[in-house]
Amino acid sequence: MCKIQPMNYSEESLRAHKAQQGKWAVTSKMPLETKDDLSIAYTPGVAAPCEAIAKNPEDAYVYTMKGRAVAVVSDGTSVLGLGDIGPMAGLPVMEGKAVLYKKYADIDAVPIVLASKNIDDIVQAVKMISPTFGGIHLEDIAAPACFAIEERLSAELDIPVMHDDQHATAIVTLAALYNALQVVGKEIGVIHVVINGAGAAGIAIADLLRSAGVARVDMVDSKGIIGLGRDGMNPEKDRVAKLINAEGRRGGLADAMLGADVIVGVSRPGVIGQDMVKSMAPKSIVFALANPVPEIMPDEALAAGAAVIATGRSDFANQVNNVLVYPGIFRGLLDARAKKLTMSMKLAAARALADMVESPTAECIIPSILKVNPAPFLAAAVAEEVRRASV
Amino acid sequence: MCKIQPMNYSEESLRAHKAQQGKWAVTSKMPLETKDDLSIAYTPGVAAPCEAIAKNPEDAYVYTMKGRAVAVVSDGTSVLGLGDIGPMAGLPVMEGKAVLYKKYADIDAVPIVLASKNIDDIVQAVKMISPTFGGIHLEDIAAPACFAIEERLSAELDIPVMHDDQHATAIVTLAALYNALQVVGKEIGVIHVVINGAGAAGIAIADLLRSAGVARVDMVDSKGIIGLGRDGMNPEKDRVAKLINAEGRRGGLADAMLGADVIVGVSRPGVIGQDMVKSMAPKSIVFALANPVPEIMPDEALAAGAAVIATGRSDFANQVNNVLVYPGIFRGLLDARAKKLTMSMKLAAARALADMVESPTAECIIPSILKVNPAPFLAAAVAEEVRRASV
Repeated sequence: MCKIQPMNYSEESLRAHKAQQGKWAVTSKMPLETKDDLSIAYTPGVAAPCEAIAKNPEDAYVYTMKGRAVAVVSDGTSVLGLGDIGPMAGLPVMEGKAVLYKKYADIDAVPIVLASKNIDDIVQAVKMISPTFGGIHLEDIAAPACFAIEERLSAELDIPVMHDDQHATAIVTLAALYNALQVVGKEIGVIHVVINGAGAAGIAIADLLRSAGVARVDMVDSKGIIGLGRDGMNPEKDRVAKLINAEGRRGGLADAMLGADVIVGVSRPGVIGQDMVKSMAPKSIVFALANPVPEIMPDEALAAGAAVIATGRSDFANQVNNVLVYPGIFRGLLDARAKKLTMSMKLAAARALADMVESPTAECIIPSILKVNPAPFLAAAVAEEVRRASV
Repeated sequence: MCKIQPMNYSEESLRAHKAQQGKWAVTSKMPLETKDDLSIAYTPGVAAPCEAIAKNPEDAYVYTMKGRAVAVVSDGTSVLGLGDIGPMAGLPVMEGKAVLYKKYADIDAVPIVLASKNIDDIVQAVKMISPTFGGIHLEDIAAPACFAIEERLSAELDIPVMHDDQHATAIVTLAALYNALQVVGKEIGVIHVVINGAGAAGIAIADLLRSAGVARVDMVDSKGIIGLGRDGMNPEKDRVAKLINAEGRRGGLADAMLGADVIVGVSRPGVIGQDMVKSMAPKSIVFALANPVPEIMPDEALAAGAAVIATGRSDFANQVNNVLVYPGIFRGLLDARAKKLTMSMKLAAARALADMVESPTAECIIPSILKVNPAPFLAAAVAEEVRRASV
């Protein structure tokens, strides 16, 4: 199981992207052949839906793409493991997210890459284009800018905004954790989780796991356990440190992992050693999500005593993959015409995803996107939570 | 020929837009079924085109949608004949433009409606989203803001920008005029043209006709012949007035049309009387382009002695319709990877469109979009002009 499959997709991907000039494309839902077709889809008939929406703006959800359209917005500052490669270089990823939206949730998503990485510029640009869309998917925007951007947009727009790298990652992680805990027979209310990595994903995972009732969360970044007054903090790390490390614990990753039940790595290849895994509590759970090379390889973690392993890769068991989450989340938000994505909706989505695995085992704590499309299940759970919350 | 066909498309258009939730949609050019499909279109393979573009930004045209994508941008201030109905109410029109781009020129266009009608906000928003696109199509933005917006974006972006209501209208008008002149046996270098309407279309038509060599152009708005120092001028009208009315002629539409060879109406229903047409030079040409109700009905203009009539309507002969132009223009600009749309490219496009009619008659001075797709012809002419200009 744990031999690394050769990564030979690069050549084929270059060839395919060149042959098709990317992959995202447009199509029409109405016929455009006859004079009548054109008169209905375009002038003079099109004046009727225009006038209806002018009278009642909510009718944009009835007569236009708005209610099924999501903008996939990036400044290209944190693309895959490649970092700040710029907006145009991030475009292949945004096209990928957009076509997967269509495939899994029948959402018509538009890649939008931005010419500036300034927070104010990004917030203003997204607000400007927002009348077109029913939701805003932020993608591959580096921390800590991503936090301010998402917070301001969520507050100022009346359509839901989600930073995928934060919340989709957090939701799929929690879903995997729910089932991993069932496999090892531990309760969420008593476990100690260490998160290695305090970027977009790490912060969101910490928030979601705390909301899910995890007893203790420690967070570690490249300078060690985060804590108020430490070097290399930022406002988000400060916020989280206040919640999880009021005691002011210090130390490195090895210190944090001593006796822990769960390690979630959203950091860098190879930073978790077998000795660290050995120092964890019995029946430890290791989520090594750095991609494509995880913090520790699954065979090494197993050999060091881990009971359940997950990675971000499709060639190992238990792939923790955002695509399990974001299409369903936005399908639910759009279906329920939600204005915000709330913590209770994220928890409902994680529960719905976990529940798709009937009898979790160490080798199966999370569905594979190649075997089942979880979007309808997540969408139903999110939409139900929207309705419950607005009652 | 000249009986008004009942306009009963409104109900059908509302029904169709509701049934489909608009008409613009997304599709994938790559398969997304197997693990290999996903590994090529998305991770890990997608990293290869990302890295190639990071090294060489021009490769965005090779590996992404950029080279075949155009944003159809509007603030909703001048939609159809409906006026300032707002961005969401304009969305059905933008969806229509976008799906027609796909049909006629295989361009993947994205409707983008904007939350503000402030010029600076619009310029900044379009600049921000510009890395995504190979061109910017401005649509239904009211004069005079449209002039400053297009001018600033053309200067500040390295992709072509075109305000459809100005230049596509001007190009199709000039194409129709070339063939109308052939029908009546007049030369462009000696004719007197009156343009009624000094908005986006009127101004652009004046500029293009002058560049095409029309001897004399007069422009009239609701306050009469435009001239420096007159009430109700703006900087664009001033600019044009300096060029066409240095003598300071004053008067109304009837004064301007006396002895004219051509009247082009881009104004309001019914404002051209039969007496005005009777006062024109022999073999007069009447383009009454207000839509859906023209400045004068074709049967009235014919009865008053006009030799050639065109309108904006599909139920009369000689429909002057932007869709004959904008898909082909942008196909040519994208094919040649042009950075600007220049006057010489517009003239080449008009010539190419006119030349599609082999033997013009009074009833056929312009092709019908229902019978032939002019986009490949215009695209070739524009691309050739781009190459000629850059040699």
